Amino acid sequence: MVKYYPIEGNAVIGQSGGPTAVINQSLAGCVEGLLECGFKGKILGAHNAVRGIVANDFIELQNIPQDRLNRIAATPSAALGSTRDKPNEEYCERILKSFKKNNVRYFFYIGGNDSSDTCRIVNKMAKETNYELRAFHISKTIDNDLMCNDHTPGFGSAAKYVACAFMGDNLDNRALAGIKINITMGRNAGFLTAASVLARQSPTDGPHLIYVPEVEFNIDKFIEDVNRVYSERGRCLIAVSEGIRDASGKAIAIQLAEKVEKDEHGNEQYSGSGALGDYLAKTIKERLGTEERLGTDLRVRADTLGYLQRGFAGCVSKIDQTEAREIGRIAAQMSMSGNIDGSIAIVRISDVPYRVEYKRIELSDVAAKTKKMPQEYIIDGCNISDAYKKYVSPIVGPLPVIELLRTHRV
Amino acid sequence: MVKYYPIEGNAVIGQSGGPTAVINQSLAGCVEGLLECGFKGKILGAHNAVRGIVANDFIELQNIPQDRLNRIAATPSAALGSTRDKPNEEYCERILKSFKKNNVRYFFYIGGNDSSDTCRIVNKMAKETNYELRAFHISKTIDNDLMCNDHTPGFGSAAKYVACAFMGDNLDNRALAGIKINITMGRNAGFLTAASVLARQSPTDGPHLIYVPEVEFNIDKFIEDVNRVYSERGRCLIAVSEGIRDASGKAIAIQLAEKVEKDEHGNEQYSGSGALGDYLAKTIKERLGTEERLGTDLRVRADTLGYLQRGFAGCVSKIDQTEAREIGRIAAQMSMSGNIDGSIAIVRISDVPYRVEYKRIELSDVAAKTKKMPQEYIIDGCNISDAYKKYVSPIVGPLPVIELLRTHRV
Repeated sequence: MVKYYPIEGNAVIGQSGGPTAVINQSLAGCVEGLLECGFKGKILGAHNAVRGIVANDFIELQNIPQDRLNRIAATPSAALGSTRDKPNEEYCERILKSFKKNNVRYFFYIGGNDSSDTCRIVNKMAKETNYELRAFHISKTIDNDLMCNDHTPGFGSAAKYVACAFMGDNLDNRALAGIKINITMGRNAGFLTAASVLARQSPTDGPHLIYVPEVEFNIDKFIEDVNRVYSERGRCLIAVSEGIRDASGKAIAIQLAEKVEKDEHGNEQYSGSGALGDYLAKTIKERLGTEERLGTDLRVRADTLGYLQRGFAGCVSKIDQTEAREIGRIAAQMSMSGNIDGSIAIVRISDVPYRVEYKRIELSDVAAKTKKMPQEYIIDGCNISDAYKKYVSPIVGPLPVIELLRTHRV
Repeated sequence: MVKYYPIEGNAVIGQSGGPTAVINQSLAGCVEGLLECGFKGKILGAHNAVRGIVANDFIELQNIPQDRLNRIAATPSAALGSTRDKPNEEYCERILKSFKKNNVRYFFYIGGNDSSDTCRIVNKMAKETNYELRAFHISKTIDNDLMCNDHTPGFGSAAKYVACAFMGDNLDNRALAGIKINITMGRNAGFLTAASVLARQSPTDGPHLIYVPEVEFNIDKFIEDVNRVYSERGRCLIAVSEGIRDASGKAIAIQLAEKVEKDEHGNEQYSGSGALGDYLAKTIKERLGTEERLGTDLRVRADTLGYLQRGFAGCVSKIDQTEAREIGRIAAQMSMSGNIDGSIAIVRISDVPYRVEYKRIELSDVAAKTKKMPQEYIIDGCNISDAYKKYVSPIVGPLPVIELLRTHRV
């Protein structure tokens, strides 16, 4: 039997950064984990993450009936509200002050690498002032770019959305042939864009070309890739990461946004605009849509998957749900086991059967760092390998089955 | 017992225009209907619709095993391939010539109002030359804009996608407040955009503003609507139809495309570009993102739902599937009952319990006509009524359940 060493006081849970389809599973898991371990204090949900902490804006979570908690868990996007604030030292001091005032001894912060850094700073400050705080970072990001994690909660469901989107769009592009570009999320890591490869169920299926931020983007090579595929197949479906960057090292989307919005505040806007897709479509049309190349009636279109991919209602990976719940529960359990802190990482034990375990790592191992896609997942700078497919498939789970008409022509 | 009066010969089935998530249900239903009625000829699937007919490019469909036919039926997008060709008289003569050469006596054309017109013209030509042809149009369009139909196959699934997309995005916008625009399909009719209203499960849920092509779009009123909602709620989620047009009567998306692509062929491009969303977002930012109005840190984003909404794998309305199958089967049955032709329309018998019947109408009743949304579905030019919600709910079927955290603040 596990022995717990709780400290008297309250707990705070916050949800930070971009929402996911399973971020409330981690919230529910954390609440359940605390209660299962006999936690007696208040469980305070911070409204809009760190903003709620410093503004003393909390929602009590310890008395939610289980059926309601289950429905909240199954609802996409941060139930507590979120924020894009990245606290500096002064902000973190105000967070700690609020914790002391409210006798908060447990802090759970569900988020990406910025959030783990907030957690780390507040934790360090608490230690320096001999205030016992058990601070835990609970991984969450559709970008799948956290160090020490095989993958992150939220990624599997977003990857499933991307796969299903490309499955449908591949069939659309097959029925009405043309060149089609889909821009997917992923500022620094190409994991989510690469998940489009799951749409390929037969040899002729797209996406036929896949571009990720890990590979320097060259517009001339891109045009020649598209020309080659279209000339061979009479159609071309392309997955492009919003974060692709050219030789300058600067993301193309940012360069386009700067051209358009000179008067803005330097907020780097990748998503929420169709600019990157429209630019690529226009360039293809200009360079290939001539009589000498592919003909002036060349049909080129671009869609930007946008915000929908991170919380589409009803498109969720069951494994992702389970793991997100579990990671919250385990953070809570660990926090009750003694005066410790850290981040809970998912470690893969085996591919078949798919098995993972959860491991405590140091906050500094994950804080403010970014994991990129391994090079073995990338082929020729414009395609994704079977090794990646093997990696991602169990995280996404079963996909709709596609059946094509392949009977002989008359 | 029903008596059939078949005519010896073969059947052609084609799928035309933009694909849907259930267009292959109608294909399967039509094949099943013919075989169930004892049809003895060949069932020829026209590859890429009318293109395959004139090019003698067919796929035989009469021997597909039932389990495979079921999987094809469940696969989104036209299994036979599609086309955007709109045949003129000369083209239609070539279609009829192909029919005569292949002894085709049954013609089933799955498509929208353009397709029903092709069906009508070929049918008229056959009659004029005393060639017995039993020509049937099988309704299909996500736009839901066919006359004499309560609704059309394909619409329910696309509406479900739009509803789920807005449900997720409403929660996203709730968690990270700002102004968010989503552009949905619908060139002339606002039915699909209006389906975004289903995302509202609680009084504060978005979309807070909905703009359809049936209402003349005025950019000044739009800005004031957004200003009002954002000032009241601190956030604003907006659904905009790609087909909105201003006082000039010309769609804004077309006006923008003309500005950008002066060198193109006059093809009216609504989808496959983020231009309309980006223009609206930019205008909001310019007019409201000032210190005097909503502040210079105003967060405005736009996504364009694009092609994904018409065939997303795994997001389908069960009712839509059933009706699409049934309408194909009934067209086949009717064609076997005598020398008749027409289009099969869905007529609603009751809302609760939801019941429909299928009725043969004349091809000329539906051909080349467009149904608009009734005015009773539109409120104040920027919202959708409960009457519409009552109309659309049974067609879409059950949606994911959303549970919000509404416990009292501490």
